[in-house]
Amino acid sequence: MSYNYKIILQYDGTRYDGWQKQGNTDQTIQGKLEAVISKMAGTETEVHGSGRTDAGVHAYGQVANFHLEKKWDSEELKDYLNRYLPEDIAVFSVEEADERFHSRLNAAKKTYTYYVDMGPKKNVFTRKYVYGLGQKLNLSAMEQAAVKLCGTHDFKSFCSNKKMKKSTVRTIHSITFHQRDQVLEIRYTGDGFLYNMVRILTGTLIEVGMGKRDPGSMEQIVQAKDRQAAGYTAPPEGLFLTKVEYE
Amino acid sequence: MSYNYKIILQYDGTRYDGWQKQGNTDQTIQGKLEAVISKMAGTETEVHGSGRTDAGVHAYGQVANFHLEKKWDSEELKDYLNRYLPEDIAVFSVEEADERFHSRLNAAKKTYTYYVDMGPKKNVFTRKYVYGLGQKLNLSAMEQAAVKLCGTHDFKSFCSNKKMKKSTVRTIHSITFHQRDQVLEIRYTGDGFLYNMVRILTGTLIEVGMGKRDPGSMEQIVQAKDRQAAGYTAPPEGLFLTKVEYE
Repeated sequence: MSYNYKIILQYDGTRYDGWQKQGNTDQTIQGKLEAVISKMAGTETEVHGSGRTDAGVHAYGQVANFHLEKKWDSEELKDYLNRYLPEDIAVFSVEEADERFHSRLNAAKKTYTYYVDMGPKKNVFTRKYVYGLGQKLNLSAMEQAAVKLCGTHDFKSFCSNKKMKKSTVRTIHSITFHQRDQVLEIRYTGDGFLYNMVRILTGTLIEVGMGKRDPGSMEQIVQAKDRQAAGYTAPPEGLFLTKVEYE
Repeated sequence: MSYNYKIILQYDGTRYDGWQKQGNTDQTIQGKLEAVISKMAGTETEVHGSGRTDAGVHAYGQVANFHLEKKWDSEELKDYLNRYLPEDIAVFSVEEADERFHSRLNAAKKTYTYYVDMGPKKNVFTRKYVYGLGQKLNLSAMEQAAVKLCGTHDFKSFCSNKKMKKSTVRTIHSITFHQRDQVLEIRYTGDGFLYNMVRILTGTLIEVGMGKRDPGSMEQIVQAKDRQAAGYTAPPEGLFLTKVEYE
């Protein structure tokens, strides 16, 4: 018998080597969580994330789960984690979940948000959480291109992992744009995203916004199934995993 | 003949020893500005700020001015400054002012905003810009106390500088409170503020909000004209110089 806890957490990814625990670094979000939870539980405890975020990528609403032998009060568990986690990782929701709940396998929809600062200088207070492009973009061209990327496609051209053996077919439900002062917010919702996919989509859309690519060329990029056909990989600091939704 | 430029700037004060240039450190906002402007002008150029901000205090709308022998286009001057200033200092407005304009001497009104996080853990993305108090406050008691502090008084009890020879009489026009989720925003508008005054006002109001002081005791604190009578000095990281207004 064990108890399954679902947590929602925020992190500033600036000083981390991404979500996933790796042998060569202890600076990972998963590693920090497992260290605190394992110590609390008195036994090695694995934490499952809804998905890996890359080095330097932030999360506003990452979801994870883990099993404990002892039953905990959700508020007490949340307070314990927040007390011992570093100041750049915070848990803002803890709840007991069905014993079969798995944060990655059951995820139905994910939303990522990418922030591009088009102004000559980044806002000093949010400078670590936006990509400082420093030039204006043609939004209407970007919107035309985005429409072509939505739907169910083989997104192999937008995946950095060349050894990917599993399916590279994904569904993008929507790509929306919002501009606030000099900052462009691009929001992607889909059933899941490949390795670096949101950053490559963003780099490609930025090239459209700069006039370097035609909005009509998106279908050819998808059809090429070749990473070389798509645009550059936008840097990690502008990217947030915003929300993970379950059935 | 010289040209007088008025600039409005933002800075993240975290890694600075305050506004004012000092012999023992080159980590001051004034020092960074003077270095860039003097190099640009080819001659030592003094920059006047509307007021000194303490070490670690931020500014959203600090105003400064300086004189140049050569006439500059405002946009070019802004771009030049932003290119050479560090990433935690940004100029967002440059305009040519009347030759007699002085950012400190002509300031009629200043607004400071103090952010207190009452939740158990700070928001990870704004953690450097709020004071992490970690406990709830009685807002209505704080509002009652704040009313007693508004108006024209001798604020000697709220000044850290014991050697202050000039008048310690100031007028506070308003102190307002806004709560957003777990963050309390306290906004002070007045004709000017003494050394550490906003931080001591905040520490005193927080003690009222914690139930350690009675809202009715504010008049006695003012009348005491003694720093010991007031509350603690709230830490710098929650404080922003928000706005400076001129006639």
